[in-house]
Amino acid sequence: MTGRLLVRNVRPMGGPAVDLLVEGGRIRERRAGIAIDASVESVDGGGRLVLPGLVDGHMHLDKTHWGLPWRPHQAGPRIIDRIENERRLRAELGLSPAVQSARLARQAIANGTTHIRTHVDVDTEVGLAGLEGLVATRQALADAVTMQIVAFPQSGVMIRPGTVELLEEAVKQGADLVGGLDPATIDGDPRGQLDGIFAIAERHRAGVDIHLHDPGELGAFQVELIAERTTALGLQGKVAISHAFCLGMVDGDRLAGLVERLVDSRIAIMTHAPGDRAFPPIRPLRAAGVTLFSGSDGVRDAWTPFGNADMLERAMLLCYRSAFRRDEDIQLALDMVTVGGASVMGARGYGLDVDCQADFLVVDGDAPAEAVVNRSPRALVVKGGRVVAREGVAVV
Amino acid sequence: MTGRLLVRNVRPMGGPAVDLLVEGGRIRERRAGIAIDASVESVDGGGRLVLPGLVDGHMHLDKTHWGLPWRPHQAGPRIIDRIENERRLRAELGLSPAVQSARLARQAIANGTTHIRTHVDVDTEVGLAGLEGLVATRQALADAVTMQIVAFPQSGVMIRPGTVELLEEAVKQGADLVGGLDPATIDGDPRGQLDGIFAIAERHRAGVDIHLHDPGELGAFQVELIAERTTALGLQGKVAISHAFCLGMVDGDRLAGLVERLVDSRIAIMTHAPGDRAFPPIRPLRAAGVTLFSGSDGVRDAWTPFGNADMLERAMLLCYRSAFRRDEDIQLALDMVTVGGASVMGARGYGLDVDCQADFLVVDGDAPAEAVVNRSPRALVVKGGRVVAREGVAVV
Repeated sequence: MTGRLLVRNVRPMGGPAVDLLVEGGRIRERRAGIAIDASVESVDGGGRLVLPGLVDGHMHLDKTHWGLPWRPHQAGPRIIDRIENERRLRAELGLSPAVQSARLARQAIANGTTHIRTHVDVDTEVGLAGLEGLVATRQALADAVTMQIVAFPQSGVMIRPGTVELLEEAVKQGADLVGGLDPATIDGDPRGQLDGIFAIAERHRAGVDIHLHDPGELGAFQVELIAERTTALGLQGKVAISHAFCLGMVDGDRLAGLVERLVDSRIAIMTHAPGDRAFPPIRPLRAAGVTLFSGSDGVRDAWTPFGNADMLERAMLLCYRSAFRRDEDIQLALDMVTVGGASVMGARGYGLDVDCQADFLVVDGDAPAEAVVNRSPRALVVKGGRVVAREGVAVV
Repeated sequence: MTGRLLVRNVRPMGGPAVDLLVEGGRIRERRAGIAIDASVESVDGGGRLVLPGLVDGHMHLDKTHWGLPWRPHQAGPRIIDRIENERRLRAELGLSPAVQSARLARQAIANGTTHIRTHVDVDTEVGLAGLEGLVATRQALADAVTMQIVAFPQSGVMIRPGTVELLEEAVKQGADLVGGLDPATIDGDPRGQLDGIFAIAERHRAGVDIHLHDPGELGAFQVELIAERTTALGLQGKVAISHAFCLGMVDGDRLAGLVERLVDSRIAIMTHAPGDRAFPPIRPLRAAGVTLFSGSDGVRDAWTPFGNADMLERAMLLCYRSAFRRDEDIQLALDMVTVGGASVMGARGYGLDVDCQADFLVVDGDAPAEAVVNRSPRALVVKGGRVVAREGVAVV
């Protein structure tokens, strides 16, 4: 075991074919015709694309039913229906957050995901049990995927006294970020929820990632409240808003004003491109300089029976919902599931250059856009210089 | 060669496991524990689902770039941009409709499609060359897929004198249906185009399948014109409107009136669930008794770089755009790509009962809904009693 890996004949981002020599977890050489002694593990990339590791910036690993028998979806259509259905199912199924999160994380790894941000339910019923499970999975898979955990108040904050304290305890016990959930419609107290979670972020210099489904002006109002607090507390670059449907609902002038606030406070926006409602418009936000990222959101859980933790499929859906057809537009979607997410997660040394972390995947396609169109099984996934998946199957 | 095939241990539509004995192209027995002599070809279904063959009710086989190197998309966003870009590319690439259509049809077969309705360009530039190619492919693959051809005036009818005559000639030379295209915006003459194509249908007792992208009231107006002609000429059950975006744009009362016309005239509606615009609402149309079907539409052509001729993926997209999560809703989408399309194509003996045509696929999943969620490679595809694909690869 030399700790070295030579990936021969791959085309970074669709460019000319090169070999990649990996050592000590980093890309050490990137050029054609690297000669190396036979003891070094060597893989033939067959002229395929190499892309930097995919970033799934919004998962709910703790609550997936992945690996369990098919379970017909039962919840009503409203968010509150689904929250209540989930609470009921959680008790009934007795799911282990550690086991379930590891199952789905391995599936993500098989699909080329090298970085995950996952929201874990923290509430006055489950307490920190979900967090403990996720911390265990993060540790168990530390060599195979980089994982950030958001302490997520799925059942609300102000309406469930004791939750703020639990969120803070979660951050002390290993959560990287503090989450939030529709401060207006879930808590009826946007100022209360936001002040509560931002205070935790300030005390612990933790990041913030808030689920904001609230529509139109109600959502826009809260975007402003979030931006105010981000700037006031010096948390620029550490705050994200997930979903932010409202950005797809307000008109041009209003949107422009909100975008200016987002840029000023360096708040990132996560969208998974929902199929049936408005979502943040990718092209104008990106053009204005907003950092955009994406994620699987729920995968086979009480919220949806769909999902497969494939971020190339997610990029396809971003294109599908945005009428992206040109390579440069498809690249915008691909950026969201690669460099955009990596930036949000503060991934150092992310990329395919010499000295970058050796986190990449090898996949069929002439051009990066074709990888999004094809979504072939990932031929090879490398994380920190180790092969973690081959031919669509995790080997960790 | 006995012409018999035993598919053991499969679960029709997710029901109890049975064996299917196929002979003479039909399902002859369907029960557990069929005993048969060892000379009969036998396949173990491994307890997987069996579904009736998938129906791709709207393809453009003649114009796909399937099998060619990646070509970045070049057209502007409007329909007319894409028509003009396509005409330019067609000349530049010199594609063979026979070769290209066979390539993509084989991919469809690999994905479990047993029935295809394809629209083939007929205009005053290409004449009937596309039709000839499609007729050749239909003949070459006759044992592997049932194919209907629609003579499609991609460049308009009334604005290109000579097109009506070409469409009629196409029907004489093997097209099963006559097509149309946005009679108002493409021709500026809805009455002219519709009278022209319906006259052909009447003379030859051919079906009609009209592309109608025109929005809102402009589209709704033309739905009424189409319904009038369908009823007047006794073509009930032989007419389809493809896309019909307008049905997703008009309000409740107006929609109800249009739906009544569709039901009375037995006009079927095809939607592929476009990602970025309104489309016919599935649940209310189905509840009212409108026959709904779906299709891939363009696959890797001058219109879109996306697509893969997988009708289980199409069913997933129908669900994604419709917020379908419950099994019974997912089944609505699955119906569109199976029984709905089969009904529109007049497929006799379609289904999984004894005496039905042996057109089916074997695929992973506990329930039919899970097949749509998983979209695993098709373990086995049988057409007319012959194995035509295994493990996601066509063997014809």
